[in-house]
Amino acid sequence: MTTFMDVHHDMKGITAEQLSAAHRADLAIEADEGVHFERAWADPDAGVVYCLSEAPSADAVKRIHERAGHPPTEIHSVPLSV
Amino acid sequence: MTTFMDVHHDMKGITAEQLSAAHRADLAIEADEGVHFERAWADPDAGVVYCLSEAPSADAVKRIHERAGHPPTEIHSVPLSV
Repeated sequence: MTTFMDVHHDMKGITAEQLSAAHRADLAIEADEGVHFERAWADPDAGVVYCLSEAPSADAVKRIHERAGHPPTEIHSVPLSV
Repeated sequence: MTTFMDVHHDMKGITAEQLSAAHRADLAIEADEGVHFERAWADPDAGVVYCLSEAPSADAVKRIHERAGHPPTEIHSVPLSV
């Protein structure tokens, strides 16, 4: 398993409820790909959302986010952390 | 206090030790501005580092990172999280 940070750049105006609903939609299907979405942070003014996950691959992250209705703009493996 | 995610785009090849040293350099002076850097994640291949902090302002985050020798490329306030 690898840690990933994916970024969505098209989320301007996202609300707390929408972020929560999007996260629940990921959680509902993430086991299909062995992914776990841990946290997400949103800047509604800039429309940017950052999602932290543990997953077997970037493609697995991408597939879950796509099926949940919010394909990410970027996915970075982040093997280093403090 | 607000939560911030700042992003560095010029960190290609960063090592675990360099990330740790950079984080320690922030921690050593962050109290001067009432900032706390909580976590950081690095993609050495793409050269991207994400830093999560609590701070009174984006400018305070910027000043600490600049004084520590690694000015961020972007700083986003992320008032929403899950």
